[in-house]
Amino acid sequence: MALPSDRSICPLRREEYILSPHFVSYSAFWVFALRRFATGRAKDSLLVSELSSRCPPPSLTVADSAAMEPAARVVTVESINPKVLQCEYAVRGEIVIHAQILYCNIGNPQSLGQHPITFFREVLALCDHPSLLDKTGIHALFSADAIARAQQILDVIPGKATGAYSHSQGIKGLRDAIAAGISYRDGFPANPDDIFLTDGASPAVHMMMQLLIRSEKDGILCPIPQYPLYSASIALHGGSLVPYYLDESTGWGLEIAELKKQLDVARSKGVTVRALVVINPGNPTGQVLAEENQKQIVDFCKNEGLVLLADEVYQENIYVDDKKFNSFKKIARSMGYGDEDLPLVSFQSVSKGYYGECGKRGGYMEVTGFSAEVREQIYKLASVNLCSNISGQILASLVMNPPKIGDESYESFNVEKQGILSSLARRAKALQDAFNSLEGVTCNKTEGAMYLFPRLHLPNKAIQAAKAVNAAPDAFYARRLLDATGIVVVPGSGFGQAS
Amino acid sequence: MALPSDRSICPLRREEYILSPHFVSYSAFWVFALRRFATGRAKDSLLVSELSSRCPPPSLTVADSAAMEPAARVVTVESINPKVLQCEYAVRGEIVIHAQILYCNIGNPQSLGQHPITFFREVLALCDHPSLLDKTGIHALFSADAIARAQQILDVIPGKATGAYSHSQGIKGLRDAIAAGISYRDGFPANPDDIFLTDGASPAVHMMMQLLIRSEKDGILCPIPQYPLYSASIALHGGSLVPYYLDESTGWGLEIAELKKQLDVARSKGVTVRALVVINPGNPTGQVLAEENQKQIVDFCKNEGLVLLADEVYQENIYVDDKKFNSFKKIARSMGYGDEDLPLVSFQSVSKGYYGECGKRGGYMEVTGFSAEVREQIYKLASVNLCSNISGQILASLVMNPPKIGDESYESFNVEKQGILSSLARRAKALQDAFNSLEGVTCNKTEGAMYLFPRLHLPNKAIQAAKAVNAAPDAFYARRLLDATGIVVVPGSGFGQAS
Repeated sequence: MALPSDRSICPLRREEYILSPHFVSYSAFWVFALRRFATGRAKDSLLVSELSSRCPPPSLTVADSAAMEPAARVVTVESINPKVLQCEYAVRGEIVIHAQILYCNIGNPQSLGQHPITFFREVLALCDHPSLLDKTGIHALFSADAIARAQQILDVIPGKATGAYSHSQGIKGLRDAIAAGISYRDGFPANPDDIFLTDGASPAVHMMMQLLIRSEKDGILCPIPQYPLYSASIALHGGSLVPYYLDESTGWGLEIAELKKQLDVARSKGVTVRALVVINPGNPTGQVLAEENQKQIVDFCKNEGLVLLADEVYQENIYVDDKKFNSFKKIARSMGYGDEDLPLVSFQSVSKGYYGECGKRGGYMEVTGFSAEVREQIYKLASVNLCSNISGQILASLVMNPPKIGDESYESFNVEKQGILSSLARRAKALQDAFNSLEGVTCNKTEGAMYLFPRLHLPNKAIQAAKAVNAAPDAFYARRLLDATGIVVVPGSGFGQAS
Repeated sequence: MALPSDRSICPLRREEYILSPHFVSYSAFWVFALRRFATGRAKDSLLVSELSSRCPPPSLTVADSAAMEPAARVVTVESINPKVLQCEYAVRGEIVIHAQILYCNIGNPQSLGQHPITFFREVLALCDHPSLLDKTGIHALFSADAIARAQQILDVIPGKATGAYSHSQGIKGLRDAIAAGISYRDGFPANPDDIFLTDGASPAVHMMMQLLIRSEKDGILCPIPQYPLYSASIALHGGSLVPYYLDESTGWGLEIAELKKQLDVARSKGVTVRALVVINPGNPTGQVLAEENQKQIVDFCKNEGLVLLADEVYQENIYVDDKKFNSFKKIARSMGYGDEDLPLVSFQSVSKGYYGECGKRGGYMEVTGFSAEVREQIYKLASVNLCSNISGQILASLVMNPPKIGDESYESFNVEKQGILSSLARRAKALQDAFNSLEGVTCNKTEGAMYLFPRLHLPNKAIQAAKAVNAAPDAFYARRLLDATGIVVVPGSGFGQAS
């Protein structure tokens, strides 16, 4: 298979004019963090209530509504669930809707020309249409190990029925394969009964928020800048986001003192903090946590009685030699902590890594450290949507068990995989250098994931112009940039970043 | 393709011994409605609060929990979201978990041997692995119109990327195709912007409940017996189920007087009723609404200011000559009602019909009659999970646009389709006759969907035995039946049916 060149990955040529030939080609998801002040992040003053007041619900009045509609409506924005109104989703918010370009801001590499991994798609096609396996001529079109793998997968699906609902946690034989993949990755055993297959990582995150959040008095510690899935899900379930700030000056470091401080602030306001979200490698900040730091985080959760929600969907996306991915479960087990020591959920997705299969909506969560009764409740939540899609389930089993050395497809698979990963790494470096060469822009070194989070220092005049039209300076800048150049950027404030 | 014989559809041979060779082969989803009294349904006394008190949350005490767990847990059933505890899901509840047989009670025909439609699977396989289209030898393995259709579909997907996230409502070109299919079905235009593609109908239902329910003071009118998705979703979103009773004595008739009575009762208790759920053809009762009845329902919603939530997933499953499926949108439009007259949501799924593609998790909702601002909020909810899976989206476009007369595949497609539908109809009739020939069992005539809801008249002794172990008589019977014979039946009380 011919791999896409860097150039072919970037269909938005107009952007090349602005900054560099590699400007957006590194990733489909990149943002400007626009901040008014070069120093003084004043993070101490950003508390739970203030954060939510920064993201007010859209201000639609009854008068607006009446002006737009000829007749009285049964359902109005005033009469819907206010949690829905309060939920904001920066990567698909107002700026993106205004732009009418939806496909390049959410870590969506195949929309920008990245090809799918051939082996994975061969297996999917055979599982979708299993009667192909009985036909002569099939060996001319499919690799032998894809045929064998499809056969193995069909053998673990009751009745070979890829069109049937499965067990609500996912097909048992696929969970066995995923557990084996996790065990191989971590060097510690994984239990297939702990795996819940889901339509991508997002529904898994929603499920945990739904389980944990009882009211606005329940808080979830989330990194800032954060992936807006978390703030959106917390808002939808009526909880409070308790922000902790990643330290830009130490490469988006996650400091325990900061966690502790924000936990104490939230508790002093009567918020019961239920869980800590850690995104590693970082989204949208691109850092990879050091093992020592992960140990501190595990101990922090254990000591403070928090559920550790580990977003590990970028586990295959690491671009520096001195860092490697360690799952939080591996870290916890290596510290001697077992199932009874702390509740830990790891989220994985088929949408990221070198595979980038966003449209397939596959993923899983590995749920450990919960009592049998609580797990039953998680199972019930999974069962309310019956099951996740079977193609996504199959793909999740494949990404956790790709071809291995000696398999017929291994060599071509590895060429494809390394081609994608090295291209991502090359573009990460080029984009980071490009940002840092620009006047008024600084950007931390990227280590992993698919993102850079550069910092812009706007002139005072731009800030005043934004104020004049009652807009946040970063949103104002983003809108102007779009209108003037066609480049869409998501304002950093949508990620909760301080100005 | 050889169609499965009736016999091959029923893998649970032990059941043949009990009742008839056709006992469960009609459908993967069948239940006993066990009722203590042959007469006197006492439906008047079943009000909102009483209904919820009939389904208490699992009674786990702190002592139970402590006895089962060695250490204090961070998360206990007492500290999770109580809405999760209150949610019950009869078709995947305690009896089903106890049985360890999950695949034959949720309208899941392919798990019981029904083959997928060849044309649909050919197209899916080609879209999953598009590079097949460039290979010689492809025409020997795939039909010409499947190849052409796959090509058409790939052409409407930006970058032909079936592995990319799509627009959160689904791929525009596929929504165009679905809207065209709806227009053809109804004879009234459909707008692609009204279509929201979802991972099956369940997430669409949840989305509407999330939108409409603000607190337990918001109620949703639901048929009893009902598909438990509705009660589960209402409970999860913290609303009140307002029951209305289908009249078994008139073939599960839906009477406006009953709707009005239950609406008034709910309102007198301070419940704001937001919406009416109608399942047509009926689940789990199998009736098909008459056109005149549908008109009354539309007028009722319009006059009372209710959102009409029309579960129309069994639209292809009609087995009697004197009934046909009419979508509620067609009915409303034929009455001269336009978009501004009433909010109406139609749910459709790829899981039912003759296709039965449950595992693909495809479906859509057609949302009409909402203001632009409210639709934006629905869009936001859709966007929080990014998009539904692309294979499910493709399949939804296929079921709404199957091969037509003149297409190369049409003849073989039609043989498969009619084979499945006539087999379902034959089994429906056979099962209905079998039930009615049994002593102490009565069952209404089936007209559509995949279900029968027979009525059993238990002897007093059985009821006393159930009381002695503090169980509902129907749940007790179901448990005993399972243990004694291996047959799993879901107690009718799980569907809210009166005893």
